[in-house]
Amino acid sequence: MSTNAELLARREKLLGPNMRVFYDDPVQLVRGQGVWVYDADGRKYLDCYNNVPHVGHCHPQVIDAICKQAATLNTHTRYLHEGILNYVERLTATFDDTITSAIMVCTGSEANDVALRMAQAVTGKTGIIATNHTYHGNTAAVSQLSTTKPPIGGFGGHIRHVTAPDSYRPTGGSAELNAKAFAEEVEQACQSLITSGHGVSGMIICPSFVNEGFPDLHAGFLEDAISAVRKAGGVIIADEVQPGFGRIGTHFWGHQKAACSPDIVTIGKPMANGHPVAAVATSLEIMGAFRNAFGYFNTFGGNPVSCAAANAVMDVIEAESLQKNAEVTGEYIRAGLKKLADRHSIIGDVRGSGLAIGAELVLDRSSKQPAKNQADRVVNLMRESGILMGTNGINYNVLKIRPPMPFGKPEADLMLSNLDACLQKL
Amino acid sequence: MSTNAELLARREKLLGPNMRVFYDDPVQLVRGQGVWVYDADGRKYLDCYNNVPHVGHCHPQVIDAICKQAATLNTHTRYLHEGILNYVERLTATFDDTITSAIMVCTGSEANDVALRMAQAVTGKTGIIATNHTYHGNTAAVSQLSTTKPPIGGFGGHIRHVTAPDSYRPTGGSAELNAKAFAEEVEQACQSLITSGHGVSGMIICPSFVNEGFPDLHAGFLEDAISAVRKAGGVIIADEVQPGFGRIGTHFWGHQKAACSPDIVTIGKPMANGHPVAAVATSLEIMGAFRNAFGYFNTFGGNPVSCAAANAVMDVIEAESLQKNAEVTGEYIRAGLKKLADRHSIIGDVRGSGLAIGAELVLDRSSKQPAKNQADRVVNLMRESGILMGTNGINYNVLKIRPPMPFGKPEADLMLSNLDACLQKL
Repeated sequence: MSTNAELLARREKLLGPNMRVFYDDPVQLVRGQGVWVYDADGRKYLDCYNNVPHVGHCHPQVIDAICKQAATLNTHTRYLHEGILNYVERLTATFDDTITSAIMVCTGSEANDVALRMAQAVTGKTGIIATNHTYHGNTAAVSQLSTTKPPIGGFGGHIRHVTAPDSYRPTGGSAELNAKAFAEEVEQACQSLITSGHGVSGMIICPSFVNEGFPDLHAGFLEDAISAVRKAGGVIIADEVQPGFGRIGTHFWGHQKAACSPDIVTIGKPMANGHPVAAVATSLEIMGAFRNAFGYFNTFGGNPVSCAAANAVMDVIEAESLQKNAEVTGEYIRAGLKKLADRHSIIGDVRGSGLAIGAELVLDRSSKQPAKNQADRVVNLMRESGILMGTNGINYNVLKIRPPMPFGKPEADLMLSNLDACLQKL
Repeated sequence: MSTNAELLARREKLLGPNMRVFYDDPVQLVRGQGVWVYDADGRKYLDCYNNVPHVGHCHPQVIDAICKQAATLNTHTRYLHEGILNYVERLTATFDDTITSAIMVCTGSEANDVALRMAQAVTGKTGIIATNHTYHGNTAAVSQLSTTKPPIGGFGGHIRHVTAPDSYRPTGGSAELNAKAFAEEVEQACQSLITSGHGVSGMIICPSFVNEGFPDLHAGFLEDAISAVRKAGGVIIADEVQPGFGRIGTHFWGHQKAACSPDIVTIGKPMANGHPVAAVATSLEIMGAFRNAFGYFNTFGGNPVSCAAANAVMDVIEAESLQKNAEVTGEYIRAGLKKLADRHSIIGDVRGSGLAIGAELVLDRSSKQPAKNQADRVVNLMRESGILMGTNGINYNVLKIRPPMPFGKPEADLMLSNLDACLQKL
């Protein structure tokens, strides 16, 4: 086994500079099982971070599905195959009646890249609204939604950013005024896009605002904002790459919790437990407009192995009641974090839904000044103690707790007691 | 098992309209093994088309690598792991000394999307040159290189298309004049990009011009064109998604046969025998410029399972001497096709390299008028006879013979005798 120093040196040379790794002392993982991962020295870590191994690291049912189908047939969709049809039927059955068709691709980035063009195809416009601290992917087109650096050649001018909602520091001081302020900003963005000539193709949002620190927003928070977009002729893209597949516990999809009906839904990361698959689902009308305006074929997208893996993940979510587990364990963790907050005033806010949990650290509860450095320190102390978690949020001061879905109460207790100890060391 | 009619109806509903399938009577594949695939009725077909199952459908060594690693660990590259480093080391060892680093992604489209930005990052310009009948992928940015329909919002104005070389109808009547004409067009495209203010970031080419019908070009054909791009400040992107990994027999990469040294190389489809993985390889200088200008992270890219699959494909190519087999069998097939041409005047030209083979059908050998309808008819007759192949080329009149790499002489004989019979039916 190589040392961390050796691997870091090889990364620099083979993968290039500035390839971020997690933690001051990076982890060399060699094995995973359920909610546990193991490093090269045989040390085990409780995984409170990874959402991609949705049903748990190395779930035997998913591996079995992959191995069986990989040994049978793996090909593209220009031949007929039942696998993709059965999966798309099952997937779209989880959405509103209007969303009945899908394109399968390989990454969330590809899904959002297609979704943006679907919005363009059905509206004939290019203007797009996104929140100001989001991440929707890494293609040239999609990365313009989240990059702060102007790309070579400059921004396209067709993007308007609106302030991501913050439930801890609500604009106007209340949830209702916060929603109103959000809607007004979206309305202004629509006006600006119309004035600029780009017009409004739509708004793309993570309905749970995961990258923006899981704000606690009431159902209907987005209603007026969405009305403004629709009134301006645009469509709504819900990026469910992070909240989807039952993670938020109360609902299977983030947009269901937010009580909104998107026109296009994109999904990715957890869809096949790490096997590279993603999808864009929409109405047949929008699908037809897209296929007519652009044409699209994805060699690997929807191959029988990817469909088998994605189907197995659905099976396991159902068989192991993972959405319910996320709801119950998530509640339990948030209650535990709130108890910790009684003793640790640095915890300013505890929020989230299901197993998408945020604990925002602040220097002072009245000023709510973000404690970014302390959040980083906690995450590194936790890593030393054998618990993997991360940070997120607009100010990077929110502890991000987003474990694989089979995470239970014993693991929650371990995480909470270690967190207690680490907070004491600050 | 569903009927074809049932599956076609479900596709229309679930995947949307205009999802192309191969053949007038589509094939419902359920199983693959080596160079053979099987339909739902148990009928077997010789696969002379699919390059993605590079080392043969369902190769046990690749399946074994996938299953073992999927059962051990599958995670992203923000933890340390040897798998990606060992693979990138092995991959870059097959290139010129200057190309020493790589980014692993999931699809050839993602690879080219990154490659275009690498060219932008190192030059500070956006103008790009491509051939006029090529295909480099399906992201919003990359699809602009090949689409004939203007995207919503219009073309970016930063693309110049040059005429793809045609060895069967060389401009000026000779290979030398053909190369000169190509270089002149590239030089004009550079001038046009400079004048327009976009400047020249580079030229992207498939060095074997696979989509353009595998023209037979001499080594050095591209030399003057490449010089023109470099003189204008641009870099060269070799899209090896189709010709790479020994397919062309004489060399491991298309650009090696073309005797050119690209600055950036993209690879995809055959890389892991159908598992969704692709990569962009370049110098550390260009990699640094890209990472500095854009930042990039791909959740699934370079995960341990993808690396294990890609590594197993390299192992099999070496262990089974598949590059050599491609060279020998390819020569044998071309010789067989030339013999068929003695009896079938519709075969105007036989060309290609290794197991990337084209037979161009013409109505008349002196006028060389493309026989597109006849090529379609042959491909459908071949499908009826149990042989899968396709068409390509600028006029879609070239029989495309591009089988999995373990394709041998007995299979070649079967394909050739069926082709003989099908040509007789025209």
